[in-house]
Amino acid sequence: MRLHPSSLHDSLQDPVLGSIGFLNEVMSRYPEAISFAPGAPHPDTLDDLDTERYVDRFIDYLVDEGRSPEQARRLLLEYGPSRGIINGIVRDALHRDHGIDAPPNALVVTVGAQEAMLLVLRALFRSAEGVLAVANPCFVGIVGAARLLDIDVVPVDETELGIDLDALEEVCRSSRAKGQPVRALYVAPDFSNPGAARMSLACRQRLLDLADREDFLVIEDNAYGFTAPAGVELPPLKALDTARRVVHIGTFAKVAFPGARVGYVIADQQVGSSSGERLLADELAAVKNMVTVNTSPLCQAVIGGMLLEHGGSLTELSRCKSEIYQRNLTCLVDTLDRYLGEGLHPGIRWNRPRGGFFVRMDLPSPVDAALLEVSAAQYGVLWTPMRQFYLDRTGDNRLRLSCSYLDPQQIEEGVRRLAAFLMEETDPGRTVAVAADPPVAPG
Amino acid sequence: MRLHPSSLHDSLQDPVLGSIGFLNEVMSRYPEAISFAPGAPHPDTLDDLDTERYVDRFIDYLVDEGRSPEQARRLLLEYGPSRGIINGIVRDALHRDHGIDAPPNALVVTVGAQEAMLLVLRALFRSAEGVLAVANPCFVGIVGAARLLDIDVVPVDETELGIDLDALEEVCRSSRAKGQPVRALYVAPDFSNPGAARMSLACRQRLLDLADREDFLVIEDNAYGFTAPAGVELPPLKALDTARRVVHIGTFAKVAFPGARVGYVIADQQVGSSSGERLLADELAAVKNMVTVNTSPLCQAVIGGMLLEHGGSLTELSRCKSEIYQRNLTCLVDTLDRYLGEGLHPGIRWNRPRGGFFVRMDLPSPVDAALLEVSAAQYGVLWTPMRQFYLDRTGDNRLRLSCSYLDPQQIEEGVRRLAAFLMEETDPGRTVAVAADPPVAPG
Repeated sequence: MRLHPSSLHDSLQDPVLGSIGFLNEVMSRYPEAISFAPGAPHPDTLDDLDTERYVDRFIDYLVDEGRSPEQARRLLLEYGPSRGIINGIVRDALHRDHGIDAPPNALVVTVGAQEAMLLVLRALFRSAEGVLAVANPCFVGIVGAARLLDIDVVPVDETELGIDLDALEEVCRSSRAKGQPVRALYVAPDFSNPGAARMSLACRQRLLDLADREDFLVIEDNAYGFTAPAGVELPPLKALDTARRVVHIGTFAKVAFPGARVGYVIADQQVGSSSGERLLADELAAVKNMVTVNTSPLCQAVIGGMLLEHGGSLTELSRCKSEIYQRNLTCLVDTLDRYLGEGLHPGIRWNRPRGGFFVRMDLPSPVDAALLEVSAAQYGVLWTPMRQFYLDRTGDNRLRLSCSYLDPQQIEEGVRRLAAFLMEETDPGRTVAVAADPPVAPG
Repeated sequence: MRLHPSSLHDSLQDPVLGSIGFLNEVMSRYPEAISFAPGAPHPDTLDDLDTERYVDRFIDYLVDEGRSPEQARRLLLEYGPSRGIINGIVRDALHRDHGIDAPPNALVVTVGAQEAMLLVLRALFRSAEGVLAVANPCFVGIVGAARLLDIDVVPVDETELGIDLDALEEVCRSSRAKGQPVRALYVAPDFSNPGAARMSLACRQRLLDLADREDFLVIEDNAYGFTAPAGVELPPLKALDTARRVVHIGTFAKVAFPGARVGYVIADQQVGSSSGERLLADELAAVKNMVTVNTSPLCQAVIGGMLLEHGGSLTELSRCKSEIYQRNLTCLVDTLDRYLGEGLHPGIRWNRPRGGFFVRMDLPSPVDAALLEVSAAQYGVLWTPMRQFYLDRTGDNRLRLSCSYLDPQQIEEGVRRLAAFLMEETDPGRTVAVAADPPVAPG
């Protein structure tokens, strides 16, 4: 049987759905290239990772809680509650490390942050009602999930200082005027992927006030909060959320390891008019029954054991990783300065984020798959075209550099190749020279 | 913030989404009751399950394939391809054991069969176009997934002999006449949950002919095929599918263990008009990027290692389990005969499936949550009301008995309690007595 593409769901025509596959395909064809493309974990964060020990640690915990060793081991092999089995440990860590004070039943453990996004969007959006506002540029995962569910997405510009709150207010007004009010906003306030935006404390407060005034929910993605330099951490929106406007999504892919496929969502919004205890998290767990049933308890056990071995603290768990990623980011920006700064390449500029995995670079000419192919084949260096992150044409001349899984020598060599590529293959004379954006204030 | 239920997605009002949670909740309140409710694995199938050994076995396999031990171990901890990392092993097993001959790129490894269902429905159905036909009664997971995606579902009656093909043909005609043709049919041809239906070889052929003639796809769920008595196995629809009309879904929850959350889908339908190699499986992998990104490679490794330790054979992997479930099913039916047969309870009858986990029982009076509460509290026995499995009222007087995770003594004691409950709490005089359905021919 042959299926016509037009007979399949519309989302499959959207380049967002193919973007991850496209990058993997290019990388597989150029295994020798230095790749600034993926936001993959640094290999050093995986080398000593003993999953068996962590499982045993979690089983000990279950035994301490009153189960027999046999019951504890079986718990990891059977079906389990849709909402998860490590909820208390995760909830306590979020309270201790981030000041998020949610009841235990407000948390659902998910198959990575991606499933959490899908569950939240599905529960919150009725068919053809309301729109999702997203930071522009935006993580492809949330836009892709919205496409799967036929949810309309409206972009709101984001700079290094975070989402443009005036523009957001205007979007709220115009959307309501069209009869499709903003139901929710997706935002990553700490070093967003790919924009590297970071919202100040004042901006966070203003966003929450706006959410209350304009009656929308904030879907907060906290994937990169742990990469903040020590001493300049800011509280996540959820910790400031007295009105329960924030649904908080996190992942263990970066602070632990991606192969566990474990994330979580806190959704403490009350559902229904009674004084009952039903929370949005209960609805998410019901939706999850029809998506993945439950998150592998074996994987949850590894993550639970890792957290317990680090004193139940996300900060302790992620400390070494944060240092590696800080080192790499500093190295990347410094090396870009050395090879491309000082007006050597007028018209090429980049940002200088204080955290996260990503640097954004503006070129004087369009950045597309064909240019990536040239960069890979002739210069041995890979990166990500940024147009897939934008809902408009703003990103057409931009590329994203990820430094997470490289070592300083590889970053240096990669930037050397990148500089050669940019020198030969782009036309820096066409726009006014600006060597680099000014540094962003730490909030 | 308080959310009104009517502001959330319609699926959350559907009892199907709450059905699993409801049963878990009742079971948690009556931990001492004997439960015929869940289709959970028998504990004996989990006792010797050494996940660490299986991971090591899979790593050895990766090393044999040319990776270094370090690379192999990292593969289990990192992100990975959306379509999976054990595809070749699974594909070979399906070929060897079931005669399914699909190219390796036609397989996607999923987070259980549930995610596979969601991916297939999302890819195949455009918004508000076409309907999904399902066996009635039907597994709640497929109806729930359809509800999440606003896909209309049409029931087609199913007896122990399988789906009513004349009724299906009529549904195809009437749906097309309404401008909403049947796009796909969901069916479990071997011992469906909950109907225990089994289609004969002739019926399977007739279904495939009908699919070709009426131009719909068949979504085949093979969860219980392994429970067929030795010697009377039938080929899955996919093995007979010369026209590529069948999308085949399987799970390792029953033949291996549920906690892995690993399933798979074979979708070898060509997409597009070119002679290119793009298959429906490629589209499913793209959708999966936006649902769970990839299935935990650590969990895939456990399953891959289990398969390898059993000679790469699903039949070998499931042999002991099949024997346990056969023993239990025979025990349940025999015990029902002893306690309830011979006209002792006129108006109460049940089926006698040759495989699967479930027996269906008809009562002379309605079966609902209130009756289950009485059964649990006063008689110490749990079961599943069947109305949640039906899209019409056919199941209002029915309950499902699962025997998968009990031992023969528990089954005997459970049936004794059930008989006492039925004697006291139902009114068997209201309908004509039929002690039991005639046995179903093995096809």
